[in-house]
Amino acid sequence: MEKKPNILERIPEPTLRRLPWYLAYLKMENKKGVDFTSSTQISEAINVSSSQIAKDLSLINVSGKTRVGYDVCQLVEVLEKFLGFTSLHKAYIFGVGNLGAALLQDFGLRQYGLEIVAGFDVESKLVGKIIGNSPIYHMDDFKNVLSENDVYIGILTVPVVNAQEVADLLVEGGIRAIWNFTPFRIKVPSNIVVQNTSIYSNLAVMYNRLENNKI
Amino acid sequence: MEKKPNILERIPEPTLRRLPWYLAYLKMENKKGVDFTSSTQISEAINVSSSQIAKDLSLINVSGKTRVGYDVCQLVEVLEKFLGFTSLHKAYIFGVGNLGAALLQDFGLRQYGLEIVAGFDVESKLVGKIIGNSPIYHMDDFKNVLSENDVYIGILTVPVVNAQEVADLLVEGGIRAIWNFTPFRIKVPSNIVVQNTSIYSNLAVMYNRLENNKI
Repeated sequence: MEKKPNILERIPEPTLRRLPWYLAYLKMENKKGVDFTSSTQISEAINVSSSQIAKDLSLINVSGKTRVGYDVCQLVEVLEKFLGFTSLHKAYIFGVGNLGAALLQDFGLRQYGLEIVAGFDVESKLVGKIIGNSPIYHMDDFKNVLSENDVYIGILTVPVVNAQEVADLLVEGGIRAIWNFTPFRIKVPSNIVVQNTSIYSNLAVMYNRLENNKI
Repeated sequence: MEKKPNILERIPEPTLRRLPWYLAYLKMENKKGVDFTSSTQISEAINVSSSQIAKDLSLINVSGKTRVGYDVCQLVEVLEKFLGFTSLHKAYIFGVGNLGAALLQDFGLRQYGLEIVAGFDVESKLVGKIIGNSPIYHMDDFKNVLSENDVYIGILTVPVVNAQEVADLLVEGGIRAIWNFTPFRIKVPSNIVVQNTSIYSNLAVMYNRLENNKI
């Protein structure tokens, strides 16, 4: 069932975003004791067409067996591994306000392969503290700390007014991927990976659609 | 500059998702003491084309003045109001695990118009507790509690295996919008607003692109 995915092939982002949905469903089925499933069954549960599911899975070299379908347990393993959830990726967090502190505390991200090893802030009352096992350093010490660790991921939870300036600092210091929780669209060189988690955009759409539905 | 937006017109979702980005930039400029800005200036800062910005803003009946541009302070106000960030929307949270508890504690969501008034869980050790000013009830009491409050928004932070079942319960109880933090794609009637915040999809894309960049 599994061939080693060719990582030289660039998997399209929409596929990468859907794979965790399939994984979530398969883990649920696995827990229920289901051994085999089909793209049709997955499709019915999660509102993605079965041909899309089969296509997405074929991109990571997984295909179902005729009349039997996909081996649930095996597919969970393949997906978790392919998505990088089984290896541990170290990250720093920049900005230890409400959101930053919440992420530093046990947030369940380790199950998805993310370990936040330290936080950075400019607030002197935070510097030197330990939050959720991670030490908090002053933002000015970032480059020294970075050189001691093998950390490539920076989580951006600073106030929006500092987002670009801190993003520039991260790039300069050698961070190669930025997970941006601020509503500011940061500009970075094209070799830097940026993922935006737009919780405020989610709220805006939700409020607006609720208003629309009232009419 | 401002006309009352016609809420009968359905603003496209991509526009709604971009408006908070403009707001973030404008708040930053406002703080710097900038009085006027143009779609070109916004465009240079946040990587959205100036024609797109002008078009998006025209959809909420805002247009810049020739040679002067947009009044920053006024546009901040119009956007905050239009996006619903200045009114308070009450919400319940379902699932008080790591993520749920973090959201219940001060997470800065009030600034964006969201007030979480109570949490629900099935864990008896959580029921009856107060987390971040909000009482935690048993999931079974949801319908009774709901009838006492004017709450239409449910935040879904239950384990993935319970996502659909709890979503069904919310819909049955009268919740009209679900903010889904689980990686499970829930199925709900078409009149229910769903917004997915896919932090695991963000991680999957980030890990994959980092691997790609190594080559």
